[in-house]
Amino acid sequence: MKRNLLLTPGPTQVPPQLCEALGRPIIHHRTPQFQDNIKQALEGLKEVFQTKNDIYILTSSGSGAMEAAVVNLLSIGDKAIAVDGGKFGERWVELCQTYKANTVIHKVQWGKAPTAGEIKSLLNAHPDTKAVFITLAETSTGVTPDVKAIGEVVKNTKAVLVVDAISGLAAQEIRTDEWHCDVVVSGSQKGLMLPPGLAFVSASAKAIELINMSTTPRYYFDLRECKKAMEKTDTPFTPAIGILIALVDSLNMIKKDGLNNMFARYAQLARAVRAGCSAIGLELYPDPSCATNVLTAVKVPANIDGEKLTKIMRDTYGITFAGGQDHLKGKVIRMAHMGALDEYDVLTGLACLEKVLHQMGHKFELGAGLTAAQKSLNAKV
Amino acid sequence: MKRNLLLTPGPTQVPPQLCEALGRPIIHHRTPQFQDNIKQALEGLKEVFQTKNDIYILTSSGSGAMEAAVVNLLSIGDKAIAVDGGKFGERWVELCQTYKANTVIHKVQWGKAPTAGEIKSLLNAHPDTKAVFITLAETSTGVTPDVKAIGEVVKNTKAVLVVDAISGLAAQEIRTDEWHCDVVVSGSQKGLMLPPGLAFVSASAKAIELINMSTTPRYYFDLRECKKAMEKTDTPFTPAIGILIALVDSLNMIKKDGLNNMFARYAQLARAVRAGCSAIGLELYPDPSCATNVLTAVKVPANIDGEKLTKIMRDTYGITFAGGQDHLKGKVIRMAHMGALDEYDVLTGLACLEKVLHQMGHKFELGAGLTAAQKSLNAKV
Repeated sequence: MKRNLLLTPGPTQVPPQLCEALGRPIIHHRTPQFQDNIKQALEGLKEVFQTKNDIYILTSSGSGAMEAAVVNLLSIGDKAIAVDGGKFGERWVELCQTYKANTVIHKVQWGKAPTAGEIKSLLNAHPDTKAVFITLAETSTGVTPDVKAIGEVVKNTKAVLVVDAISGLAAQEIRTDEWHCDVVVSGSQKGLMLPPGLAFVSASAKAIELINMSTTPRYYFDLRECKKAMEKTDTPFTPAIGILIALVDSLNMIKKDGLNNMFARYAQLARAVRAGCSAIGLELYPDPSCATNVLTAVKVPANIDGEKLTKIMRDTYGITFAGGQDHLKGKVIRMAHMGALDEYDVLTGLACLEKVLHQMGHKFELGAGLTAAQKSLNAKV
Repeated sequence: MKRNLLLTPGPTQVPPQLCEALGRPIIHHRTPQFQDNIKQALEGLKEVFQTKNDIYILTSSGSGAMEAAVVNLLSIGDKAIAVDGGKFGERWVELCQTYKANTVIHKVQWGKAPTAGEIKSLLNAHPDTKAVFITLAETSTGVTPDVKAIGEVVKNTKAVLVVDAISGLAAQEIRTDEWHCDVVVSGSQKGLMLPPGLAFVSASAKAIELINMSTTPRYYFDLRECKKAMEKTDTPFTPAIGILIALVDSLNMIKKDGLNNMFARYAQLARAVRAGCSAIGLELYPDPSCATNVLTAVKVPANIDGEKLTKIMRDTYGITFAGGQDHLKGKVIRMAHMGALDEYDVLTGLACLEKVLHQMGHKFELGAGLTAAQKSLNAKV
């Protein structure tokens, strides 16, 4: 009878309606019946991406879509700027280096965001840059940059702006077209409330030019073949049929809820969780000026082992938070505000956090976190 | 109330027990709970692959696993022999050429199988060959080669034998170790009765040597990273969690049923379908001496449009066969014998085939196909 509540930044909870969709009998993918699903999925994704650009659907995790962006945009020796301020920015660097791009690494202190000014200076110093790679919500640190301002800078250059929105899409605003994001990649298991297995790439006309020029060998992730297939509401290879069928339902749920309402809800949950954490003595990890609403990363008190804390919460009480990554292992905990979550879920998460911190000897008044969160949730904004 | 019966060579029917597993609440992948699923999946897969070799689990369709084999085994300019006797052999050729292998293409007439003698001659002529790529069940033509005999030939050379067993695994025998198959790739949506989204690669010690030597850039499909992760019952990137959890159930079903019983059942279904087709005047497409039991490809009568036939069966009656590919479009139809199918399913398929052929004006005695199949199904073997 133990609860199974995922408050992790991917996968997120799959709501019962989508579990039902995932359990439906399968259909064949080369049929008008399935083509109708592809058509609806592409239409819905375009609304969530806020774009009129092409969107390509891949069967892989989000990292596959990141690889697709790199191998399709860059040829060997092409210059790329990759922003590395956490585990996922690091993945852009590794991908660019693996595929032998001339990679300018912009290291950003963990917990801080890259600024448009920094990107501008880098582009001035490297006018031959073909692509700038950034992360919408760096979930390892809880940081989001000003994508709009960075887009304003990049659009005036020859470079394309590539945004990893794997964490963030449908949970935090990204206006692909208005903010001049040439390529946006995402996955099924975060804001879209589905299991992992599908990934998405949007591409502007400026990006498609590079895609057609790249000489890097590619096959499974060849976006030229994806473009041809998707224009016929088809896929080059057998897609993750079950997840794609459930995606249509997920996108309908999102449409009904309203993207802006969802962004507002996640912002409200983030405020409540931060108020709750602060009330029990847990300090926000990232610089508050660039904290994303997609998740809350807080420092664990010095006398508490964060790994042990999340392990007890998960294994004894069935409530899963994420721990810290790399040098933050044991030092921070992370609670996501994405997908199918409401205020009662975050109160449940905070209640369990209070319970285990209390058991582990952290000093605070039991209920103080819940009270602060409840007040925040019910405050007039 | 229309029936939805897939008799296609991938995806195959997902049985209700596995639909249920796919609809279960999700769990996080970096947990001991999920690690236990990986462990069970690897154990079960090893039994189905009949191997003690490493098996790596990828989140992609089968073609992703084929790409993984090529980029991990071959460096630019390495010599490869790729057998092309149908659409899926053609994929090996395209992959080898895309990644700039020195590709020796062994063209085989559609409907015929490559022989061990041919592979031996090629290896004699090209002693510097690094890898030989073949297809266990070429579903475009309904052909299977003598993999055991080819294995005997390749094992005495420096080359590794790579088998596309995407169609075929768990439906047709492949003894990975005993037959010296160094790399075997497969996917979730065929004999394993699951939706597409997971792919598998097995690798022998001889293959791992090549994997460690290859200088082809790779990241998402880097089997060195897979090996490291799988040894810790982990995956390098977020896996298709839902399908992997259902895979454990699928493998338990297979274990309970018994691999050899399954192979015998599919062979029996294939015999019955062929008897039924023959009784209504449909001739087997492949050379019978190399026909696989994984599916039956038969020629459509000259006065019948095969595309129209399968369309009516699917759209009017809900029974999906596959049509012909490439130059066989409209000229053959294909009915699979893989996964969760029994004798009543193939009788249903034949009944619908009779119905629509009758409507389209093909001359035969209604029930003749069913009778022949029924007799075959109930014959003492």
